[in-house]
Amino acid sequence: MTGALDEFSIIERFFAPLSAGVMGALRLKDDIATLEVAAGCELAVTTDTLVENVHFLSADPPDLVARKALRVNLSDLTAKGVDPVAYLLTLALPRNLNDESWLTAFARGLSEDQAAYGVHLVGGDTVSTGGPLVITVTALGSVPQGQAVRRVGAQPGDKVFVTGTIGDGWLGLRALQGVLDGLDAAQREEMTQRYRLPQPRVAFGPALRGGASASMDVSDGLIGDLEHLVRASGVGAVLHLHRIPLSPPARAFADDRTERLVDLASGGDDYEILFSVPPEKADAIVATAHALGIHIADIGSIVPGEGIKIMALDGHVVSVEKGGYRHF
Amino acid sequence: MTGALDEFSIIERFFAPLSAGVMGALRLKDDIATLEVAAGCELAVTTDTLVENVHFLSADPPDLVARKALRVNLSDLTAKGVDPVAYLLTLALPRNLNDESWLTAFARGLSEDQAAYGVHLVGGDTVSTGGPLVITVTALGSVPQGQAVRRVGAQPGDKVFVTGTIGDGWLGLRALQGVLDGLDAAQREEMTQRYRLPQPRVAFGPALRGGASASMDVSDGLIGDLEHLVRASGVGAVLHLHRIPLSPPARAFADDRTERLVDLASGGDDYEILFSVPPEKADAIVATAHALGIHIADIGSIVPGEGIKIMALDGHVVSVEKGGYRHF
Repeated sequence: MTGALDEFSIIERFFAPLSAGVMGALRLKDDIATLEVAAGCELAVTTDTLVENVHFLSADPPDLVARKALRVNLSDLTAKGVDPVAYLLTLALPRNLNDESWLTAFARGLSEDQAAYGVHLVGGDTVSTGGPLVITVTALGSVPQGQAVRRVGAQPGDKVFVTGTIGDGWLGLRALQGVLDGLDAAQREEMTQRYRLPQPRVAFGPALRGGASASMDVSDGLIGDLEHLVRASGVGAVLHLHRIPLSPPARAFADDRTERLVDLASGGDDYEILFSVPPEKADAIVATAHALGIHIADIGSIVPGEGIKIMALDGHVVSVEKGGYRHF
Repeated sequence: MTGALDEFSIIERFFAPLSAGVMGALRLKDDIATLEVAAGCELAVTTDTLVENVHFLSADPPDLVARKALRVNLSDLTAKGVDPVAYLLTLALPRNLNDESWLTAFARGLSEDQAAYGVHLVGGDTVSTGGPLVITVTALGSVPQGQAVRRVGAQPGDKVFVTGTIGDGWLGLRALQGVLDGLDAAQREEMTQRYRLPQPRVAFGPALRGGASASMDVSDGLIGDLEHLVRASGVGAVLHLHRIPLSPPARAFADDRTERLVDLASGGDDYEILFSVPPEKADAIVATAHALGIHIADIGSIVPGEGIKIMALDGHVVSVEKGGYRHF
């Protein structure tokens, strides 16, 4: 490194190349970007901020931090049936990270994910801070008019599905914190990767449109996010604990114990999609998921009332309180 | 104050009411917002981040900080001929500002400006930080397809105009820093207000479309920003120092001295609009500005070549170097 770079150099060297795919971004040489929204579509927008040592660890590799910042936003769009198009990136950069090697790795991570997800950088801002690194990504997408899938809309009788596997990100964080026993080194590494690098289900977004009655991504924990979804929809839900899809390491960790299943379903950082589907549309969405190679699991159902009823394998209802659970 | 509020309470109490004007924001209860873009229009987007003690002072009133964060973004849209529509707000909030009185004042400032400029909050994120306050606003606007006015487009023979007055923000910052002599208390207060609360020329945005050949807002200083504009357009410019419009306090400070005029034109924080206009369109844009009650001044012209030639009243060319100027 050769000392602090100025804002213009940072933009020109590291970020302007990431904007090449969108003409209206003008290689980040102007103060705005313009984007066309296709006829019959509307724009969708979301933003998420990550703070060093709150949402990621200082020791995390810069390319993975960059990809996580982008992916948590793509996950929000995707879970709403929105096709991601572009994003803006704001960095409040501490002086110790303002160097070539850090910025090169950070931009490389973004470049890899742009190729993977077909999105482009269209703007942003880079400023200095005396505090921790703060990364804000604002993601823009396109969705056919009125077809964004909301948290509102789940109806009694709907089935509840989730993509992928649940609890891996939480296990990965615990592995990084050194408080996870019972997994071998390869399993710890696999879980750590899930924590550091979410896998937004971008290919599945279009399948939600017209199929799902309500949807959101799982970022705060499956149980908590299902509570958010049913509260927004004004309904209740039954969640079958043993139907929650688990990876082999999570399955080994859970060992079929109720309290551990609750932990996995409470942990967060999953970035899977939780959604409700009217029963008559369930077969079609299962078939679409299968065709896309995305695993989805039927984990419960929407019921009248409010709150969620968590069922254990033995038919008991599990009561989950903050910080624990109780068996009736 | 009664201790730290959680993210959900902050959104519900302080920010959700600001989203009431846009149905697709769903009172900030969902993960995305949707916006319709009118037929024949495209979306324009810009983002700016302010860091405590870099872009504003810790002692600045929270309502003014909020309004400044919004206004610098509205200024960017307006200078491009874009009509502002909505914005997202991200706060990385230090623990000492997470209290009712600070958040109430901050939200009140936004509410006042929403009413003034016809924009609405549609999303955002609120996180904790151990560092200084970091505020990111991403502003969204609408512009007829292909009519956004860029930095690129100025042609030799075009006149160069600027709105309002130049140098007031810089004088205000110096007054706050205690390094400004020669103005009375009322003048200092007036300049301080200009620094703390930019006045984006939102009403003038539509007049730029079809009238201006290139345009940008003046945030880094008139001379520096004119250099940016001519470099982007691949042309040069002549700037007449004594035609730069000054407020009475700035005129008193300058006292017609060349070096002080250069200081005022180098200072930044003006948030006026700098634009070039083909000569045959100049009368029309002057008339429009007059009808809107916005002062615009003809400060120079676009010429072939590169760089800017700064002319003093006596016909001498002023050479401006970093940190000073030289008289030929």
